[in-house]
Amino acid sequence: MKTGEDKLIQRIAKAAAFKSGRRLALGIGDDAALFIPRAGFQTILTCDWFLEGSHFLRDKHPPESIGWKCLARAVSDIAAMGGAPTYFLLSVAIPDTHTGPWLHRFLTGLGRAARRFHCRLAGGDTTRSDKILMNVTAVGEIRDGRAVPRSGAKPGDLIYVTGRLGEAEFGLRSLLQSRTAGSLDRICVKKHLYPEPRLAVGQWLAEKRLATSMMDLSDGLSSDLPRLCAASRVGARIIVSKLPEVKLRLEKNSKDLDLTELALNGGDDYELLFTIRPSEVRRLPTKFQGIPLNCIGEITRRKRLLLLQPGGREETLSARGWDPFRKRR
Amino acid sequence: MKTGEDKLIQRIAKAAAFKSGRRLALGIGDDAALFIPRAGFQTILTCDWFLEGSHFLRDKHPPESIGWKCLARAVSDIAAMGGAPTYFLLSVAIPDTHTGPWLHRFLTGLGRAARRFHCRLAGGDTTRSDKILMNVTAVGEIRDGRAVPRSGAKPGDLIYVTGRLGEAEFGLRSLLQSRTAGSLDRICVKKHLYPEPRLAVGQWLAEKRLATSMMDLSDGLSSDLPRLCAASRVGARIIVSKLPEVKLRLEKNSKDLDLTELALNGGDDYELLFTIRPSEVRRLPTKFQGIPLNCIGEITRRKRLLLLQPGGREETLSARGWDPFRKRR
Repeated sequence: MKTGEDKLIQRIAKAAAFKSGRRLALGIGDDAALFIPRAGFQTILTCDWFLEGSHFLRDKHPPESIGWKCLARAVSDIAAMGGAPTYFLLSVAIPDTHTGPWLHRFLTGLGRAARRFHCRLAGGDTTRSDKILMNVTAVGEIRDGRAVPRSGAKPGDLIYVTGRLGEAEFGLRSLLQSRTAGSLDRICVKKHLYPEPRLAVGQWLAEKRLATSMMDLSDGLSSDLPRLCAASRVGARIIVSKLPEVKLRLEKNSKDLDLTELALNGGDDYELLFTIRPSEVRRLPTKFQGIPLNCIGEITRRKRLLLLQPGGREETLSARGWDPFRKRR
Repeated sequence: MKTGEDKLIQRIAKAAAFKSGRRLALGIGDDAALFIPRAGFQTILTCDWFLEGSHFLRDKHPPESIGWKCLARAVSDIAAMGGAPTYFLLSVAIPDTHTGPWLHRFLTGLGRAARRFHCRLAGGDTTRSDKILMNVTAVGEIRDGRAVPRSGAKPGDLIYVTGRLGEAEFGLRSLLQSRTAGSLDRICVKKHLYPEPRLAVGQWLAEKRLATSMMDLSDGLSSDLPRLCAASRVGARIIVSKLPEVKLRLEKNSKDLDLTELALNGGDDYELLFTIRPSEVRRLPTKFQGIPLNCIGEITRRKRLLLLQPGGREETLSARGWDPFRKRR
């Protein structure tokens, strides 16, 4: 009596869902999910595409990574508000050929991510498609008035990033060149395949009211920083020598690899970009739970985006990160 | 300084968004949307694919219809819980060639639907893709304890549907045959292109605690009724002569068109299927705000799905509605 789609939903539910949580009145298997909001908290909602050809390659990315990353990307947007993820909806469209072992491995990665991020599957939609298509809606919560928007940066605020920039792009290149022997390659490939949204840092910055603005770095600093500045109606000056680049021992600016270019334009890092009032900087440690926090510049009144080069020369920062509506660099 | 994607987001926001609502603390333009839940209400959440090739055809479906229908489908799931829609997130992936007039017309249809359903655009994700891909996440609300699940049907309950069944499938066939001259063709093509989720009926049934179970008919009665019965752990007997079929004056069961088959298996009607205790039937009018409410059978203890034919013969009801993971009938 069950249709093919019903069987598929049962398998997804079994692999990636938990029992209905305290705040989930109705989960998988009804027309919609039903949540009981927590008093004193606001609801965060975000959705993210994850598409074959654009965001991953069928023959290069392990199904476990696709399962992990489709959720991690959406959860990173929750981290960027300072919130905690609670539930997610999964929309999956796959070819008939991928409902067997491929789906099993995909669900293994998705289930691992769901447990890691404490984010339960609460529903979704499944259909058939020639290409592998994913869309994840993540739900989160944050105490009233604590969410950190993009729009709160003020002139004089200092600009910080978590972690190192360009690692995921470096990892993607290693993966595409099947170069995974070195330990740096391994670290960066892992960051590309299994990114860790900066949930703990984000929640701490929001709870302590330390960040004046915040967003996650998904497309690359040179594309994402202008968005934060536009929302805050400010400019920024980035000090190139302060960028936490990939830790590679090579001659800087070699023809093969420009680490600064990688830090500015590399996508998929899912680090946090945030601003802090100068008076609050002393409250900020250099690391939070092992993740480096680095000051890379400051917010300016003048609405320009400038790069201060090591020699003292100032350049305009151009958006050269990931943009689906521009030819790839 | 703005990237191609940023410009696209601005255009979508301008066409389909309203000003931030009273309960929307942060909308389009941040990492995620931020909602203030209403005290005494639960949050309904649902997402729906709407994909070129599977759910619509680029050369047959007007862009206005694609915009309207991608939202109407998700809102219908809110109606099926008895809830009221509040906000939605739009994930759209389109080819470069479709960012001009096509997108404008799509947004016109989407905007009309958003105003009609009182459902505001609060965020989403945009990217490029060879095929036109949509995914809509709809948010709704319903008073605590009033949501109507699929799982509440009891043996003896009477089975009802709103409207007429098979009209949207009839309209799809008219559209594919470019046969839109007759008034019935026009009515049914309109229902296929611009479905009206049964929000008022659903909310009334939930508020008055009349329905014991409810769902929307998206894949066709023969595929959807088994889902309601499985969730409620019951069976059903459908009386064929009571099905509200398409109102066409032709010899029943002609070779060309079997109206009963259309009513049982036609998809995309977005009518409501619900069950009522026999003692409550007197409270139910024959029409609600002009929409017919018809009893089509009853819930049985025995977990079988039976069709009572006009001659008195009983048949098993087979799921022959829309199923993406089965070859089309």
